[in-house]
Amino acid sequence: MRAVAIVGVGLIGGSFGLALRKAGFTGELIGISSEAALSAGIKAGAIDRSGTLEEAARSAHLIYLSQPVDRILSTIPVLAKVARRDCLITDAGSTKARIVAASMAAHLEPFLGGHPLAGKEQRGAQSADPDLFRHRPYVLTPTTTETDRTREFRFWLEKIGAKVIDMSPTEHDETVAFTSHLPQLLSSALAATLARNENGNVDQVFGQGLLDMTRLALSPPELWKSILSTNSAAVHRALDAFLITLNDLRRSIGAPELAGGFIMANEFAQKIREGST
Amino acid sequence: MRAVAIVGVGLIGGSFGLALRKAGFTGELIGISSEAALSAGIKAGAIDRSGTLEEAARSAHLIYLSQPVDRILSTIPVLAKVARRDCLITDAGSTKARIVAASMAAHLEPFLGGHPLAGKEQRGAQSADPDLFRHRPYVLTPTTTETDRTREFRFWLEKIGAKVIDMSPTEHDETVAFTSHLPQLLSSALAATLARNENGNVDQVFGQGLLDMTRLALSPPELWKSILSTNSAAVHRALDAFLITLNDLRRSIGAPELAGGFIMANEFAQKIREGST
Repeated sequence: MRAVAIVGVGLIGGSFGLALRKAGFTGELIGISSEAALSAGIKAGAIDRSGTLEEAARSAHLIYLSQPVDRILSTIPVLAKVARRDCLITDAGSTKARIVAASMAAHLEPFLGGHPLAGKEQRGAQSADPDLFRHRPYVLTPTTTETDRTREFRFWLEKIGAKVIDMSPTEHDETVAFTSHLPQLLSSALAATLARNENGNVDQVFGQGLLDMTRLALSPPELWKSILSTNSAAVHRALDAFLITLNDLRRSIGAPELAGGFIMANEFAQKIREGST
Repeated sequence: MRAVAIVGVGLIGGSFGLALRKAGFTGELIGISSEAALSAGIKAGAIDRSGTLEEAARSAHLIYLSQPVDRILSTIPVLAKVARRDCLITDAGSTKARIVAASMAAHLEPFLGGHPLAGKEQRGAQSADPDLFRHRPYVLTPTTTETDRTREFRFWLEKIGAKVIDMSPTEHDETVAFTSHLPQLLSSALAATLARNENGNVDQVFGQGLLDMTRLALSPPELWKSILSTNSAAVHRALDAFLITLNDLRRSIGAPELAGGFIMANEFAQKIREGST
C-alpha cells in the first residue's frame, strides 16, 4: 500500500496508524480529523500529516474509517463521490449491518466492513497503542469477492497481530449485541442504579467487583447512542434473554438448590479466559 | 494481642495473617481450618501452626472468623460454649445482620461484626496477600460499647491499611446488596445468558469489556448461595431498582435523546474511581 488515510484519529484510528508503523509499513499515513485529534495523532506518531477526504481518495490505497458509527454513516455518501476503484475503504464501526447497507446504497466501492474488538477506557490518539489489536478479534464482513487490495489489508491485519474472523454483517451485530452492547447496558444501568440510590454509603463501601462492573460505564455516552440505535432489534433480543436468565437466578435466592445458572456462568467465564493471554 | 486464631484459612484469613505479620504483629497466629488450608497457610507464612477452637478460645486474644457465611453461622454456637470474656471474636462474613443476630442469640461475647471489601478471583491461602486490605473499606458493625480489645483490633486494622467504616448490620447489608450482591448477580446472569446462547461466536467475538463484566462470575457459586440467602430482602430491592433503571435505558434506544441514565452512570463510574488508587 502506498498511503493509508485514517478518518477519525482517535484511540482506534491512532492505534491503527501506530500498529502499521510498528509492523513495518513505510508508506504515508494521512489523518483526516478535528484539529485537536490531528495534533494528538501527529504527536503520537500515528499519522504523518493531515489531509482531506478528496485528496485521500486520490492518493491512498486504503481509507480507514475509525469514527463513531453515526459519523461513519455521514462520511459514506461524501466519500462515495470521490472514491476510486483502486482504493479500498474499510471501517472500524461497532455495528456493521447499517454501515454495510449505507455503503451499498451510496455505491461506495470497494468497501469492506470491519470491527476490531479492541479498546480501553482512555480516548484519543494520545492513548493510542500499537499493540491494541494484538491477540484481539478483528471481524471482517466481506460482501464482495476478494481483490488484491482486500488481501493486502488482511495481510496487514495479521501483521499487527489481530485475530481476523469473517462473518456476515448481521451475524456480527447479533453477536456483539450479546458480547458488547448487553454488557455496556448492564454496566451503565448498574452505575445509574447506584447513582440514584440515596444511601450515602454506596460510593464508599464497595470492592474491586464494582470497579470491574462499572468500567464500561466510563465509555462516552454519546458513542453508545449510535451503536445501540443501529442495532436495536438485536439489543432487545439480548436484553430479553438476559432478563429470563436473571429471573432464573433471582428465583433461586434462598432456595435449597443453587441455580444451575451460577455454575454455567462460572464455566463460561472460565472458558472465555482460556484463549486469552 | 498475645495470639490470634484464624478460623478458615482461605484468601481472606490467610491475607489477614500475612497483613498482621507485615504490620509488626509478633504474637502467635493459630489456624483452624481444613488440612489442605492449614498446609497452604503455613507454607504462605499466614499462620504459625494449627489448633482447635477450644484451644484458641483459651489462648487467643482475637478469634477471626473468615469462613463462608454459612460456616460462620455454624461456628458461632460452637464457639459460644468455649469463648472467654478476654477474647474478642470478629468475623469477615459478607453479610452482617444474620451473623450478628446469631452471635447475640448464642450469647457469644464479646463479638464485633466485620466485613473487609477486599478480594480477588483466586482462592485459598496460597493466593493470600499482605496488602489485600490496603486502601480498601473494612466495615465494622459494633453492637456493644468499645473495649480495650475492640480498640486493639481497630488499631491493627489501621496498621494493615484498611479504611475502617462503622455501620449498623442492616445498613451494611442494604449497602452491599447494591454494591456487591447486585453486581455479582448481573455478572453471573450475563455469563449464563451467553453460555445459553447457541450462537457459536459469542465466546470468540468479544472485547475486554466482557472479561471485566464476567470476572465476578468466576467467584465460587457455593459461596454466593449463603451470601444471597442471608440478604435476600435487600437483594430483591436492589434488583427491583436495577430493573427500573435498565428499563429506562432500554426505552431510550433509538430515541432522539440519550437517556440521562447514561450520563449519570458515567459520572458515578468516574466518582467511585476518584478515591481509589
